[in-house]
Amino acid sequence: MESFFSLLSKRVDDASSLICVGLDPHISDLKSPSADAALSFCAELVRATSRYAAAYKPNAAFFEQFGAQGWSALKEVIRIIHEESDRLGSRILTIYDAKRGDISSTAEAYAKACFEELNADSLTLNPYLGRDSLTPFISVPEKGIFLLCKTSNPGSSDLQDLLLEGGELVYEHVARLALEWNSADNIGLVVGATHPQAMARVRAVNPTAWLLAPGLGAQGGELEACLQAGLRSDNKGVLFPISRGISRAADKTRAAAEYRDSIIYEINRRAKHG
Amino acid sequence: MESFFSLLSKRVDDASSLICVGLDPHISDLKSPSADAALSFCAELVRATSRYAAAYKPNAAFFEQFGAQGWSALKEVIRIIHEESDRLGSRILTIYDAKRGDISSTAEAYAKACFEELNADSLTLNPYLGRDSLTPFISVPEKGIFLLCKTSNPGSSDLQDLLLEGGELVYEHVARLALEWNSADNIGLVVGATHPQAMARVRAVNPTAWLLAPGLGAQGGELEACLQAGLRSDNKGVLFPISRGISRAADKTRAAAEYRDSIIYEINRRAKHG
Repeated sequence: MESFFSLLSKRVDDASSLICVGLDPHISDLKSPSADAALSFCAELVRATSRYAAAYKPNAAFFEQFGAQGWSALKEVIRIIHEESDRLGSRILTIYDAKRGDISSTAEAYAKACFEELNADSLTLNPYLGRDSLTPFISVPEKGIFLLCKTSNPGSSDLQDLLLEGGELVYEHVARLALEWNSADNIGLVVGATHPQAMARVRAVNPTAWLLAPGLGAQGGELEACLQAGLRSDNKGVLFPISRGISRAADKTRAAAEYRDSIIYEINRRAKHG
Repeated sequence: MESFFSLLSKRVDDASSLICVGLDPHISDLKSPSADAALSFCAELVRATSRYAAAYKPNAAFFEQFGAQGWSALKEVIRIIHEESDRLGSRILTIYDAKRGDISSTAEAYAKACFEELNADSLTLNPYLGRDSLTPFISVPEKGIFLLCKTSNPGSSDLQDLLLEGGELVYEHVARLALEWNSADNIGLVVGATHPQAMARVRAVNPTAWLLAPGLGAQGGELEACLQAGLRSDNKGVLFPISRGISRAADKTRAAAEYRDSIIYEINRRAKHG
């Protein structure tokens, strides 16, 4: 069975893209505050951008705020992504951005909700509960996780930046654990694009993991610094979620293409000029 | 407006109870693997135990595994708890055990899902993303949170027990931050009943917070040691979630009464013998 990250890598090659389109149906962006409007918003966004997306990242909260109907909408969005994959003949990966984290039979039930009920390929998880909380999510290599490591918000310093005895920061320790635990090639890390210096430290500790790097664009992350800090020598290893930068554009297809191309351009420029 | 913990304290007095009944519809305990069966299971459990419950703790995962219908079932379970409160003339608190944790507008959407859509009184949150990730959940004093501090599972040692420069453990630091942040009397802590020594360290750092202490019974926590470690001088401050110990009993009402009484007995014994 192929691993989650070999599947992602294949899609990155097929689409020549390191972008992940965020599906965040903010009420303020919808025609009405309803699950139906959230579904329309996401369906339109997926169909407009599928050629350029390596992955889609639907954010659980924006669906859950609509209750049961929101859940049905999310499931339908994921179905549409799989439909687009079939149409293109190239599997676009889905990252259920749910930031779950629980133990034993509860973790198993969340894994069931994510992988069986919603049919997502991967999800974001919180590392605070430790190794056994990940087990049900990584037992099948084809399904993957992105562990929160250094998040893009100001409060990320409250715990993630604490200095451990021995000289490591908490988020570096998480990056190290992820390396140790990644025997099935299905554990990536969330590292905010707003913190390129932290990204460099993560990459020093964990040379191989895929990094999911939110914050480019709306939150002010810098593309060049992130590629410098996080890109692996195979010119992969960083996936950039883009949400409002595409969803609020007048021409969403063009916005997605431009994000994709700006990253390729920067990678090529780096390759030429070192 | 009353704070979440003054409301909880009132209910603890009304019911003379420090137990929180866990609503964990494991598929293996249901008549069929369906949201309807989960609802029946929980409704029966709530109606059988409401006299003895200070709070109910429905676990999100066991509902989410049933998708949209599971969500509707959870909402109905919370409605039934409010109905029982009305019947008894005493407000039983609801703790949505969802272990969420996200930032900015996403955290706001989760708060909306929890407090408005589901109408829960409080929820469990993961502290890894820091202070700003809590804001939308604690801005109304009447709504509360329980921050994960030292969880009951073996993997809790992977991050929570790390030693910080300066001599504090990560979970002690979380307990300290919770004290600093608790200006509205609505931040409690999750500390496994399986770790009474950790509970004593948490209590040393944070003398006032309510502790939600899972693990009594099925997971082997010891009541006496937990009361010694965590109880405040007002004989409150620890809430014990009990799930299978009640839900799998032949007589659920009696099981709930016995758990309640065994805690009262132990508290009275301590009061007499010091």
